[in-house]
Amino acid sequence: MADNIIISEQRARDWATAILAKVGVTGQYAAYVSDCLVHSNLRGVDTHGLVRLTAYAAKMQHIQVGGVKVVRESETTCVIDAGSQLGPIGGSIAMEKAIEMAKAHGMGLAVVRKSNHYGTAAYYAMKAAEQGLLGISLTNASPRIAPWGSVEAIIGNNPWSIAIPGAGFPVVLDMANTVVANGKIRTCLREGKPLPDGWAMDKFGNPTNDPLAAQDGLLMPIGGYKGVGIATMVDILCSVLSGGAFSKDVARIDDPYHPTGACHFFIAVDIARLISPEALRERMAEYVAMFKGVRLKEGTKEVFLPGEIEWRIEQDRRKNGIPLSVKTIGELNALADRLDVAHIDA
Amino acid sequence: MADNIIISEQRARDWATAILAKVGVTGQYAAYVSDCLVHSNLRGVDTHGLVRLTAYAAKMQHIQVGGVKVVRESETTCVIDAGSQLGPIGGSIAMEKAIEMAKAHGMGLAVVRKSNHYGTAAYYAMKAAEQGLLGISLTNASPRIAPWGSVEAIIGNNPWSIAIPGAGFPVVLDMANTVVANGKIRTCLREGKPLPDGWAMDKFGNPTNDPLAAQDGLLMPIGGYKGVGIATMVDILCSVLSGGAFSKDVARIDDPYHPTGACHFFIAVDIARLISPEALRERMAEYVAMFKGVRLKEGTKEVFLPGEIEWRIEQDRRKNGIPLSVKTIGELNALADRLDVAHIDA
Repeated sequence: MADNIIISEQRARDWATAILAKVGVTGQYAAYVSDCLVHSNLRGVDTHGLVRLTAYAAKMQHIQVGGVKVVRESETTCVIDAGSQLGPIGGSIAMEKAIEMAKAHGMGLAVVRKSNHYGTAAYYAMKAAEQGLLGISLTNASPRIAPWGSVEAIIGNNPWSIAIPGAGFPVVLDMANTVVANGKIRTCLREGKPLPDGWAMDKFGNPTNDPLAAQDGLLMPIGGYKGVGIATMVDILCSVLSGGAFSKDVARIDDPYHPTGACHFFIAVDIARLISPEALRERMAEYVAMFKGVRLKEGTKEVFLPGEIEWRIEQDRRKNGIPLSVKTIGELNALADRLDVAHIDA
Repeated sequence: MADNIIISEQRARDWATAILAKVGVTGQYAAYVSDCLVHSNLRGVDTHGLVRLTAYAAKMQHIQVGGVKVVRESETTCVIDAGSQLGPIGGSIAMEKAIEMAKAHGMGLAVVRKSNHYGTAAYYAMKAAEQGLLGISLTNASPRIAPWGSVEAIIGNNPWSIAIPGAGFPVVLDMANTVVANGKIRTCLREGKPLPDGWAMDKFGNPTNDPLAAQDGLLMPIGGYKGVGIATMVDILCSVLSGGAFSKDVARIDDPYHPTGACHFFIAVDIARLISPEALRERMAEYVAMFKGVRLKEGTKEVFLPGEIEWRIEQDRRKNGIPLSVKTIGELNALADRLDVAHIDA
């Protein structure tokens, strides 16, 4: 494997901003998008980092967008129409509104329609946690999951995140609702390896270890019908409450010709109304100590709280830069060439 | 198998009330508990119905309880000390507070400490949905789940529920975070059957199909580390925010000598501020039609939304009564004998 190339956080931000400017995304809107993507790279979630700019840019070159608008609001709730802008724009504006309402009234809920792929769910939940609040972030997505007992994917994998300030590091749950993402099936297919039990079903809805059959088939939801249930509820909360698209009406991120139509749902809670920041830190420290003091399985060195590994990676990458694979750099530079922007590693 | 015995809804309520009176739970407190348990029986969730009274009564005969008190509050948030009362008491009072706050301000959050086993998570979420609101209900519980990479259960299975009013029936997700509950392992053990893949691990943390090894071992969380993450987050939200017990400090429901110390977390949202009740019904009807119109797996007749099966059972049982097995009736009557109350089928 070729060596990685290290890109500094600042270079990543500047390059993303230059790319976005070429497709008409500027100012604060561009800042939202680049911050969201670089945040993922910093946390080691490179699948949701700068590589997404290729699809984001293609979408912006083909679809019509409008301004992000609050279309309905009360003291603790609001509905936002994201005008088909890139997901981190409507998503960030919505979570900022939810945080503002929570600071004023204790809680805030913002639902968003006509948005787009919004990066990681954690990015938004963590915006709240960074300010001492509890954050919840849900999004729907294009179909990936079949209702239990069916063979047709009509529900998105619909990621969700909950983040709470911690002692030392925030605890951040961020997950989608299948056992593995489709990328892991593709990796097994490429490497000619059988799938582990429980990853996928064939197109008839039967469990399979054959990556080719899985590719034509269905991802296995976590806990079977339970994962379907979570994904369905996330879809309903995001789409029905916002007046936006659900199920097959949510277009694929890599389809440049149609607005995605994705919908989001955000909650922020001012938890200082429940427990003082000092007491919270103390109790979270107790919780972490309890958790990490567990008896380990043979061969395991340490157990991790949700988001702890990503937090460690972030500490390292903020200081030492973001390592990107030669393949990723190639993809990013191809995009740079298309848009007449300097190479990221120039 | 012996025939079931049919008990009317009213008889179930009256009998539960009589049992509760004998252990000092009366008036509105008794009404909360009997309504919660009978609600489970009506919905076919008999594991969380009247059978729980044996453990509930034993607990009440051994522990000291105090009144349920609001210890901290703001316009949209409150912290409740449940005084070690039976779970449905503090739970119901808390969800009623959350609903009241949501009606006044759009959202309400109530966290509860020093509570007890609270029945099904759905019971509380559905209280909100019955009034046209979105309801969320979480509880922690005594340890069942081991952090991923460890062999010691230190996190509860920590059930959670989300309910939203629907078209015809509410959509109600209600789940714990392991692939199956411990009862299913016990059933395989009793029947001498091997466990299906993915249900459990042995005491060394390795997957097993042997029900005996599983009994000494660990339940498999849904999606492995993902289920651990959900259960951990539920534990933190319930306990840390309420100032209550977590992990091993939550006692078992069937330990009569110690208060359980379980903690809960409830959210209610006045979704009429986001979408009118008429529009909500219309969109939920569209959602249900989309979901149920999916292409089925061979041999499957129908797919169900979360809570739909339970809703159908409820329609039947409200009209025709609750069928209880002869074994369950025997257990309930043994409790009746101990407390000098008439048999449930008398």
